[in-house]
Amino acid sequence: MNAIQDTYPPELSHCYGCGRLNPEGLQIKSVWDGKQAIARFTPRPYHTAVPGYVYGGLLASLIDCHGTGTAAAAAYAAAGREPGTAPYLRYLTASLRVNFLRPTPLGPELVIYGRVKEMAGRKIVIEAWIEADGETTVQGEVVAVQAPDHMLEALLNRS
Amino acid sequence: MNAIQDTYPPELSHCYGCGRLNPEGLQIKSVWDGKQAIARFTPRPYHTAVPGYVYGGLLASLIDCHGTGTAAAAAYAAAGREPGTAPYLRYLTASLRVNFLRPTPLGPELVIYGRVKEMAGRKIVIEAWIEADGETTVQGEVVAVQAPDHMLEALLNRS
Repeated sequence: MNAIQDTYPPELSHCYGCGRLNPEGLQIKSVWDGKQAIARFTPRPYHTAVPGYVYGGLLASLIDCHGTGTAAAAAYAAAGREPGTAPYLRYLTASLRVNFLRPTPLGPELVIYGRVKEMAGRKIVIEAWIEADGETTVQGEVVAVQAPDHMLEALLNRS
Repeated sequence: MNAIQDTYPPELSHCYGCGRLNPEGLQIKSVWDGKQAIARFTPRPYHTAVPGYVYGGLLASLIDCHGTGTAAAAAYAAAGREPGTAPYLRYLTASLRVNFLRPTPLGPELVIYGRVKEMAGRKIVIEAWIEADGETTVQGEVVAVQAPDHMLEALLNRS
């Protein structure tokens, strides 16, 4: 199944966190299963906080991009539309909250989950969490807002 | 004036966000002026969200590391001790909240501010914000908790 980020138009695929066209980036990929989205990411050895544990800013980035990706997938599903079809449903982060429940070990693949908590107009609230070795280490929430049409049009007309 | 991160012992200087010994990292440096801490960071061209704007996960990382750095600086100041002296006062992020007030332009140097909102026992709450071209684009809060002595001892004894 395609990752939602692989359905974004090229002009909107340069994000450091999840853009498939950003070779320096994390290339986070979120797969929607009809109820929730799941991403898998193995931090690199240099993504360290104190030795042996994953850097919190990276974990916040995973929550952030997986949150907006989950929002886009959920919005297409709610509209009964195929992901990636125009007019594009693309979400920006209005706010981000991350609780570090326990240190996240550096080494294992992390699994990031995202679910819709609330949909209201152009706003979608996503609850997300990260598991390492089957244990939840991080819990977060993303308030995602649909990118304004004028912003998308400007970006799509740049190239 | 020294950055607080440059006073961390080497064993605690591998953080991807602010460790001076992490060559792949962001090397965020927070300078305490007696009332607040200030960091300056120029995002790289690939730290993009949509073209022209800074990636939110990077902004969250700046708030995170500058928050824990501000907490350490404030804790040494409150104790009347020289930063970096043992026993080490090193803080971990318990939770992070970031509000993206407006898109942050990619290009200008960002200035990150941090101030103590609350100190209570081993917990320090830091309010932080980011300015680009003199305008506040991001507002955040970090709940920082002093790293447990047993964790510091284990890390200091690893090398």
